[in-house]
Amino acid sequence: MKIRSRGIQIGTLPTGENNCLTDIEGIRVGHVTLDEPLQNGEYIATGVSAILPHNGNPFREKLAAASCVINGFGKTTGLVQLDELGVLESPIMLTNTFSVPAATEGALRWLLDQTPEIGDTTGTVNIVVGECNDSRINSIRELSVTSKHAIQAIENASSEPSAEGAVGAGKGMVCFGYKGGIGTSSRIVELDDATDSYSVGCLVLSNFGKREEFARDRYIKRTSASQPDAPEPADGSIMIVLATDAPLDSRQLKRIAKRASVGLARTGSHYSNGSGDIVIAFSTAQRFPHDQNDAVEKVICLRDSHPVMNQLFQATAEATEEAILNSLSQAVETTGRNGLTVYPMPFS
Amino acid sequence: MKIRSRGIQIGTLPTGENNCLTDIEGIRVGHVTLDEPLQNGEYIATGVSAILPHNGNPFREKLAAASCVINGFGKTTGLVQLDELGVLESPIMLTNTFSVPAATEGALRWLLDQTPEIGDTTGTVNIVVGECNDSRINSIRELSVTSKHAIQAIENASSEPSAEGAVGAGKGMVCFGYKGGIGTSSRIVELDDATDSYSVGCLVLSNFGKREEFARDRYIKRTSASQPDAPEPADGSIMIVLATDAPLDSRQLKRIAKRASVGLARTGSHYSNGSGDIVIAFSTAQRFPHDQNDAVEKVICLRDSHPVMNQLFQATAEATEEAILNSLSQAVETTGRNGLTVYPMPFS
Amino acid sequence: MKIRSRGIQIGTLPTGENNCLTDIEGIRVGHVTLDEPLQNGEYIATGVSAILPHNGNPFREKLAAASCVINGFGKTTGLVQLDELGVLESPIMLTNTFSVPAATEGALRWLLDQTPEIGDTTGTVNIVVGECNDSRINSIRELSVTSKHAIQAIENASSEPSAEGAVGAGKGMVCFGYKGGIGTSSRIVELDDATDSYSVGCLVLSNFGKREEFARDRYIKRTSASQPDAPEPADGSIMIVLATDAPLDSRQLKRIAKRASVGLARTGSHYSNGSGDIVIAFSTAQRFPHDQNDAVEKVICLRDSHPVMNQLFQATAEATEEAILNSLSQAVETTGRNGLTVYPMPFS
Amino acid sequence: MKIRSRGIQIGTLPTGENNCLTDIEGIRVGHVTLDEPLQNGEYIATGVSAILPHNGNPFREKLAAASCVINGFGKTTGLVQLDELGVLESPIMLTNTFSVPAATEGALRWLLDQTPEIGDTTGTVNIVVGECNDSRINSIRELSVTSKHAIQAIENASSEPSAEGAVGAGKGMVCFGYKGGIGTSSRIVELDDATDSYSVGCLVLSNFGKREEFARDRYIKRTSASQPDAPEPADGSIMIVLATDAPLDSRQLKRIAKRASVGLARTGSHYSNGSGDIVIAFSTAQRFPHDQNDAVEKVICLRDSHPVMNQLFQATAEATEEAILNSLSQAVETTGRNGLTVYPMPFS
Repeated sequence: MKIRSRGIQIGTLPTGENNCLTDIEGIRVGHVTLDEPLQNGEYIATGVSAILPHNGNPFREKLAAASCVINGFGKTTGLVQLDELGVLESPIMLTNTFSVPAATEGALRWLLDQTPEIGDTTGTVNIVVGECNDSRINSIRELSVTSKHAIQAIENASSEPSAEGAVGAGKGMVCFGYKGGIGTSSRIVELDDATDSYSVGCLVLSNFGKREEFARDRYIKRTSASQPDAPEPADGSIMIVLATDAPLDSRQLKRIAKRASVGLARTGSHYSNGSGDIVIAFSTAQRFPHDQNDAVEKVICLRDSHPVMNQLFQATAEATEEAILNSLSQAVETTGRNGLTVYPMPFS
Repeated sequence: MKIRSRGIQIGTLPTGENNCLTDIEGIRVGHVTLDEPLQNGEYIATGVSAILPHNGNPFREKLAAASCVINGFGKTTGLVQLDELGVLESPIMLTNTFSVPAATEGALRWLLDQTPEIGDTTGTVNIVVGECNDSRINSIRELSVTSKHAIQAIENASSEPSAEGAVGAGKGMVCFGYKGGIGTSSRIVELDDATDSYSVGCLVLSNFGKREEFARDRYIKRTSASQPDAPEPADGSIMIVLATDAPLDSRQLKRIAKRASVGLARTGSHYSNGSGDIVIAFSTAQRFPHDQNDAVEKVICLRDSHPVMNQLFQATAEATEEAILNSLSQAVETTGRNGLTVYPMPFS
Repeated sequence: MKIRSRGIQIGTLPTGENNCLTDIEGIRVGHVTLDEPLQNGEYIATGVSAILPHNGNPFREKLAAASCVINGFGKTTGLVQLDELGVLESPIMLTNTFSVPAATEGALRWLLDQTPEIGDTTGTVNIVVGECNDSRINSIRELSVTSKHAIQAIENASSEPSAEGAVGAGKGMVCFGYKGGIGTSSRIVELDDATDSYSVGCLVLSNFGKREEFARDRYIKRTSASQPDAPEPADGSIMIVLATDAPLDSRQLKRIAKRASVGLARTGSHYSNGSGDIVIAFSTAQRFPHDQNDAVEKVICLRDSHPVMNQLFQATAEATEEAILNSLSQAVETTGRNGLTVYPMPFS
Repeated sequence: MKIRSRGIQIGTLPTGENNCLTDIEGIRVGHVTLDEPLQNGEYIATGVSAILPHNGNPFREKLAAASCVINGFGKTTGLVQLDELGVLESPIMLTNTFSVPAATEGALRWLLDQTPEIGDTTGTVNIVVGECNDSRINSIRELSVTSKHAIQAIENASSEPSAEGAVGAGKGMVCFGYKGGIGTSSRIVELDDATDSYSVGCLVLSNFGKREEFARDRYIKRTSASQPDAPEPADGSIMIVLATDAPLDSRQLKRIAKRASVGLARTGSHYSNGSGDIVIAFSTAQRFPHDQNDAVEKVICLRDSHPVMNQLFQATAEATEEAILNSLSQAVETTGRNGLTVYPMPFS
């Protein structure tokens, strides 16, 4: 159940049609979830998720993009080039920390298959992969996600509203001592004269926070049943993927990406030391072709000083906060290694 | 009245002795406030504040320091060198946007007077000055703060609890449509084994936010009287100064500085486009002498992975949020140019 | 004499018409030079220079801009906002370290005079000022540059080729133990199909380097006469201002700005510890009006992957190196405090 | 043959004992080189190299570290966490662009094998992998480097002087149109009072530059034989690994890392658009244990203002330049896909 269905509303802006990242036209999300007991108490409870930024080939048609490292205790890959050139040219993959190589290789093999010129007659491709550490309930040392799983997640991608909670990369994640994982939300902002509107979508992989840090009073007015706490996190994290159809360049998308921290802070996080809190933001408003001979390109950009920019900041803060809440609200009881069970947050 | 006296408590950590920046041993704060009607509706309602980081000469004995630009629509000066060398070597001055030159020159003249070797037999000195735009009620184009006012603010500096609200640089500031300005708070964290404790202090100059953005429900449970709103901000801002006696190096202090955004976000801000939201953090734990011939120095540093680091992050978030609330709670009705009056936030 | 007149050619690209920053259409440069003996061996040998980025009001029509801090031991002001918003909205002022407040205030007063809406009905303005430490021969503690001098430098600005060497802010500067100061150069790059060409201009304020670091062999094949060395620098620096008429956004201009370090390194610098080596780059290709109500603007941008981008990088490296050489080649014997004379580099 | 054996000397500082990275006590370097013709003109000409930062377990005993992205068109992984925490905790792996996942997984599996607590009772580990694109002569789409090759490179690591040129990751690399690859060099700086000395070592993976950009006149006085040029690079790059036994913290190591660009620029590079020019620097002076309960640690740090800091900057510039030259000087004629042969630079 989405958090709104529990009567908890975040912020004041209207949501997109399905209140999820795929409300942004062309974005698709896919998951592969692994759930398999092994011997000796080991348990594979993990997965991989893929976000396809538009419905074409992301290498041949790139999108403006930026990142923000809120706290850098994380192993996200691909940010060096994304920041330098200001474009995204791959699916964004999410998985557990030790499966970053497999997810990278999977996305690479998929792109090589789709794009024979890469590494042959043109340059290489920059793959973006984010991660959280699911080792509390997943036997992460097994490296059980393979490049084939990653390819399968890409092929599973759909523009339908993404499943949430303990799905894909979210399978083994724990947030505020409860079951976390995948969550998504969206917002719509309108120009003052109502001539146009823009959407902001957010998808998170939540795996952070101690139980006592959760801003419970902000969301839940009644006394609620308690659940056993998950074991103390070794190092929690959150990956936050933001998309918008507003025409923003890389510098502006970095400003958007920074505002994800607003939503994160309001849930109770103080970006703890061991948490890789990392944001990737992209705009679908314009595609930048890889093969083009013209020296110049025409770009449409929002003006920083237009009031709608602040509305986009607000939309980002709200969508991020609500996506985190959705990751909690949609999660289900999950059992993993050493017989440990992580319970959903008791919202009522 | 401090916000705590109104029954509003921020967070869970204990405050320092006086719940202010000067709880950190050696720190002194001074203000000069200007309040003078001019002709034709113009009004000087502004000032300058000085934070002396320790009780010695800050050039001859430097402190580890760092900055964090949450949103860079601001004119703070001195951050280039502070970031490169990781040290603070001047008072931190706060004033209105157009008085940055005067405050810089004042602090410079004061340091030159104290330190005849600067610019003669040794190098120059890096002055740190932050600002907010008080032009809603102050006739900022008058450039009415002088270098002498800045020197006076330094000379006024005292280790007593700083005045708050419409004082010094805070005289003309507006926050969430109410009277803002100077606010301060502090927190104490203890090592698990209680063998030692560290303090974090915060002083803000608050000048940001629209009325409807204020996270009212977070603080105020009762219905409250309304006050006329201040005019729409041209560009709001907040300066946040953090100090700690915990032994942290520049890299770690940047991590601390980033956590100020947690407190800021919780008050309702989404770091709006026109807001210069800028943090400066320093540690008083060790002084680094300017004149020393040894090649190496011994530094004591907290370990990032020790649990106390997360407590310092929490302390920073709490102290920043409470300092903002104090700037609102302590502010008084203030009249300025064009006959405009800005009212205190009605907390009850 | 320009370095080319000495038979020393830097790089392979053609220079602009006058081989100086003002080859970029609309840019104007002005100087005020102070040269006055005081009592007790003190001497005012300093000045202030102004670069007007186009022939209109820079606040009302802003230009895309970026900075690069090669080494941050410097007091340049204005970079926080320039980096956040990616625009330049003031003249760029250059002066000695302790005159940054005066130069800032001068540029501010000039802009306020030109633009009555600033600080009244619209926001404030971000002034960019760079500096080097001329205390070896200038009595820098005198703070002898005033805001009026700064205004005068702006009013002196002309599109004619700038004077070089010991002029304006360059009056008291020392480079590689010889007289340095202002130097300028430019380059032209052509699209492969010769349908269009772009210019890159550079103006430096050189004040860095020990004599033995100068890459003498790179420039001078013959044995040359020696000159007495200037005293060991307390802390040297170089300010590098780059302009281009190529259509580049802020992210791309940061890439351009970074390439100034190539030219700097080739002269012999290793960006020494005490050197504030700071670059500001802007593009005159498009003006961004301050007052505009449209939500979006159309921007023309060079494609990063077009070969002309690399040519612009090369042009930047060459123009920076040659501007430094010109600052040396054009400098004249200069006497300052304590009777010290700094001699020109003996090129022959 | 090292470049010094050809009579070409870079800079003025003395080299370490063997003029290579492994002159820094405890550092080991290993390579696996793949050289295998396939069908249809495809050819495996690539490899993987490993740098072990000290002779213990790098996770259990971490080293202070920093990175510098000179130009970010590259896929180096691990920098987010390295920059946040300022430590290196893995071998540094170098390989071709598409083998980053395999090299990451190999280093991960090796560390998991050595360190059973990772991902079980303690957190995860951050692997650092750099890359260049060797697709001109290597059939990079084959993804022929496996995680086993990476483990083998680690196990091959030795403190003996590393092979150079077309070895390991350097097998397929091309620099200035000639055969490039692995090169290494070192420098020694002494305190003025000769009481102590520090070493700086550099190892590069060179794969950048057009033939006409090479600063030939800087190195070669005589006319020389010509060689056929290699085909135009799709996107060149250089990975630069720096190590020192000087006691530097992460902030200072970033300053060191920046100075690698000095050496790079002097060879003729202007950090071209498609070049991932990335530096990783670490200090072996002190190990930081992963498992430790103390809140604080004592750190020895060089003072930034001590003259030896500038010497370390110079040492970095010289060692980087010479390592690049060594990569060219030591390279041998190499044949790869489509029958293409890349020739060594004709130094005489």
